[in-house]
Amino acid sequence: MKKGEATRRRIVAQAAGLLNTQGYRGTPVSEIMRVTGLRKGGIYRHFDSRTTLTLEAFEHAVAAKRERFRRALAGRATATEALLAILNLFREEDSHDEVFRGGCPIMNLAIESDDADPKLRAAARKAMTELVGAFEHLIARGIRDGEFPKGDARTRARVMVASLEGGVMLSNLFKDWAPMENVLAHLESHVRNEFR
Amino acid sequence: MKKGEATRRRIVAQAAGLLNTQGYRGTPVSEIMRVTGLRKGGIYRHFDSRTTLTLEAFEHAVAAKRERFRRALAGRATATEALLAILNLFREEDSHDEVFRGGCPIMNLAIESDDADPKLRAAARKAMTELVGAFEHLIARGIRDGEFPKGDARTRARVMVASLEGGVMLSNLFKDWAPMENVLAHLESHVRNEFR
Repeated sequence: MKKGEATRRRIVAQAAGLLNTQGYRGTPVSEIMRVTGLRKGGIYRHFDSRTTLTLEAFEHAVAAKRERFRRALAGRATATEALLAILNLFREEDSHDEVFRGGCPIMNLAIESDDADPKLRAAARKAMTELVGAFEHLIARGIRDGEFPKGDARTRARVMVASLEGGVMLSNLFKDWAPMENVLAHLESHVRNEFR
Repeated sequence: MKKGEATRRRIVAQAAGLLNTQGYRGTPVSEIMRVTGLRKGGIYRHFDSRTTLTLEAFEHAVAAKRERFRRALAGRATATEALLAILNLFREEDSHDEVFRGGCPIMNLAIESDDADPKLRAAARKAMTELVGAFEHLIARGIRDGEFPKGDARTRARVMVASLEGGVMLSNLFKDWAPMENVLAHLESHVRNEFR
């Protein structure tokens, strides 16, 4: 890897943590300079705009979550097992820590951009569509395989994602795991009861 | 009302809408100046700091929601009726519009402040505690009156609030009412089935 490319990746990784806690839109460039130890020119040599850097930092954060989902799903034989594995993922130490420091990058970018920044909102929509789609896909498989009763898989997926995101928000706000645990227990029982 | 007090109230009301869409922390003072038509000095004559103005604008937004809750609850004989009235409140035209423009001020301030600003976070915590408490109070009444089975009212309240906030977030992100409607239908059925 060339030195320029290594620096670029380091900036993206450091900005990812910073922007997800301090705000994708609200964090001043001076903070990115402080965290990376670079001058403004040293940062913008690698990115044609602040928006480009923001979008890459966001994608970096989402990619880490995507990879963790992928690993949790490997080898799950049934849709029920797969959904429970995804829910249980939130109990892992890494996820636990992330809830308290930053929370969900997709929700964070959504809240900051929904009424304020169409470019960032498009990125949040794309990532959220993928997240809801992952749940929908598993639920649809469970319906096809006769694990869950017939019904609209997207509706069930939206309810699951809404509850999880709300749980992350409450637990991060209060720095208290209890709301998230309550949501997880509720959803697990919902899945085990076949969404009835 | 003295002229100074009237101006102060107008700034708070105008800032409330602006900050809830553009960000409580991220909105530059220049935007508050544009929306109010005042110079910086004209704004800060009335507020000793940007934080004071932000907190008053937030409290203005929360007070409007509190009043709407109060009206929806008036005359409801049972806890079930009261909870369904609160859920149905989200279908009113005003709430519907608010979901698409700004969303929930408490969630917005929570997401912006949870890892970044302890003073604003304290205000978000206070308002969220009140919101969860309102649900908890109704659910506890329903348990006492034998409408709902015994169980932890706070747990049930947290799950309801998490789902609602997540639904608001999804609907505002996609400017699509469907996720919110899915969440409302799910929670209504949950209340009607006595949280079983």
